[in-house]
Amino acid sequence: MVYLDYAATSPLLDEVVVAMHRAEKELFANASALHTPGHLALNEVEDCRKLLVELINAKPEEIIFTASASEANNTVIRTFEGCEIETSPLEHHSIIESAKIYSGNNRPKLYSYMLANNETGEFLKLPKKKDGEYLHSDLTQVLGKMPIDVKKLGLDYATFSAHKIGGPVGVGALYVRTDVPFKPLIIGGNQEKKRRGGTYNTVGISGFKAALEYARKNATWEIYDKKVRGLRDTLAKRILDEIPGSSLNTDIKKEKSLPNILNASFEAAEGESIQLYLDAEGIIVSTGSACAAGDIKPSHVLMAKTGDAEVAHSSIRFSFGLSNTMEDVEKVMAVLPQIIANLQGMSTIKIRSMNE
Amino acid sequence: MVYLDYAATSPLLDEVVVAMHRAEKELFANASALHTPGHLALNEVEDCRKLLVELINAKPEEIIFTASASEANNTVIRTFEGCEIETSPLEHHSIIESAKIYSGNNRPKLYSYMLANNETGEFLKLPKKKDGEYLHSDLTQVLGKMPIDVKKLGLDYATFSAHKIGGPVGVGALYVRTDVPFKPLIIGGNQEKKRRGGTYNTVGISGFKAALEYARKNATWEIYDKKVRGLRDTLAKRILDEIPGSSLNTDIKKEKSLPNILNASFEAAEGESIQLYLDAEGIIVSTGSACAAGDIKPSHVLMAKTGDAEVAHSSIRFSFGLSNTMEDVEKVMAVLPQIIANLQGMSTIKIRSMNE
Repeated sequence: MVYLDYAATSPLLDEVVVAMHRAEKELFANASALHTPGHLALNEVEDCRKLLVELINAKPEEIIFTASASEANNTVIRTFEGCEIETSPLEHHSIIESAKIYSGNNRPKLYSYMLANNETGEFLKLPKKKDGEYLHSDLTQVLGKMPIDVKKLGLDYATFSAHKIGGPVGVGALYVRTDVPFKPLIIGGNQEKKRRGGTYNTVGISGFKAALEYARKNATWEIYDKKVRGLRDTLAKRILDEIPGSSLNTDIKKEKSLPNILNASFEAAEGESIQLYLDAEGIIVSTGSACAAGDIKPSHVLMAKTGDAEVAHSSIRFSFGLSNTMEDVEKVMAVLPQIIANLQGMSTIKIRSMNE
Repeated sequence: MVYLDYAATSPLLDEVVVAMHRAEKELFANASALHTPGHLALNEVEDCRKLLVELINAKPEEIIFTASASEANNTVIRTFEGCEIETSPLEHHSIIESAKIYSGNNRPKLYSYMLANNETGEFLKLPKKKDGEYLHSDLTQVLGKMPIDVKKLGLDYATFSAHKIGGPVGVGALYVRTDVPFKPLIIGGNQEKKRRGGTYNTVGISGFKAALEYARKNATWEIYDKKVRGLRDTLAKRILDEIPGSSLNTDIKKEKSLPNILNASFEAAEGESIQLYLDAEGIIVSTGSACAAGDIKPSHVLMAKTGDAEVAHSSIRFSFGLSNTMEDVEKVMAVLPQIIANLQGMSTIKIRSMNE
């Protein structure tokens, strides 16, 4: 299998598996309990928190563990329920859909802009907030891909997820700067200083910690960047060179996008069909965000970017991770041109320049 | 270690560990993705859903997977934001605290009554709802301990958790009867028919499925009941017989409580001190709910039940699981009487009858 859907979820790193299997045996107790096994579990939670804040330049009390990036995003939006909420049109559904429902006209104003988009990998420019305004950024796709400094970025809130960096699904984190508005979304016991109820997912957090350690020690960003960018850029060049009617939805210049994501469109070929034919060859890619899979609507991200439903419908996202090799790129290019040609031959859509 | 804190969280069953380790390798893909690994992951999610509905007499579309019972409870309360919400005084903090904030005077009315309490194990009588009223029950402590039929119980909503039955932390489920009000708490992608956003925790759900299979096949309720009840009742009798000033906060008659929980108070001895001395002997118990650990306030459950802060402060919860044996009871009784005697000797609280 050639797995090129890292941006949807990444396979667990070996180090993560080892950490979680240890935690299952030794750290299973309720981390809120006052007995020794509870203390051991809580120590692991706090160790992960310290590691995360070290990587993003925050303080431990500024981190709240959640069960997902979606939960973290919803928590921020609901904190500003009834307030003016401005989001980029490229945000994840957990921001756009919740902001639609809960935004109003009151002050203070919240901006929610992701730093890099999950479908194209392209960077967004964060807005300049004025006094009494707040800025949230969903950094789900950014963590582990490049250095993050929440203070330098001027963020009041930031969202993170474990399963995009080789950690487990079910663990997210929310950075909440000291002294900014906050309302718990999940009210419960004393966990997370009463900011998020629910038994600590110690095993999952132990996996997140291992993934963060891996990001810090074994895969410095330079190594990650060099390896993954090389694969991505090679695939981009070969697609453009070898597949008629292809175009990139990701600007692959270094200052324009994350190194691991390539979104491309193929004239008169439907994205889901391409995905299924590649799947039959053991090549795993996606059409935009997995969260929206099954929608017949084109990707809101590509629509916002291109304004062209055909381009959006004919797009595929390739997303790389450290397990990928140049051989994977070869395997894609051994079958993709023919798949596209076949689909274009079957298509009833009039072929026209994608740039018209 | 003698682990008697199953009601806070249970060690993972061997079967659960096997299932999760398999899922980590084979079912890691995003279950919302349209490719083959995504389908395999989604199948596992749906298999767990089918198993759960079979056990509680519901339909698959009536189940929403969450990341915790607390999330499920909050989802129900927030659905009735602004409405009249009546809860029993014995509810979990995720109900009581959220209801305090979000209840109002509008219709329809919601009742939230747990079927069995987490601190004492005692059953509650569910209220009779009238037309246009709705009933939620937090069944977190009940699942796997006795048969559940949500239809016979007349429930519109019910909350479940994996980690109280040998499954992993981080997986809960909410039963939502067809055609009752519902508002998503975590808004996001298309997951759970748009009722709960966030990447499916397939590995965790795979563990939940294994725990449910175990509850159904290997540990029929009769076996569970017989074994665990025997341990609990023996400990109860020996505490009353051998420890002066002891009293039970759990009515251990069969029709009065779950078979696995025993809450007891010890005159003039402080619960947390008892817990710490037992901990030093390798015996793991709790003082009420772990979620509230660290609170200096007495347990709201025992206060509601006894109205006596001293009784509440001097209480210990022993909660059993299938790994426990009569030897564990022996070990407790080998040290507990002396611990209590020492604490009573140190106490400055005037010793008086607990029943005064």
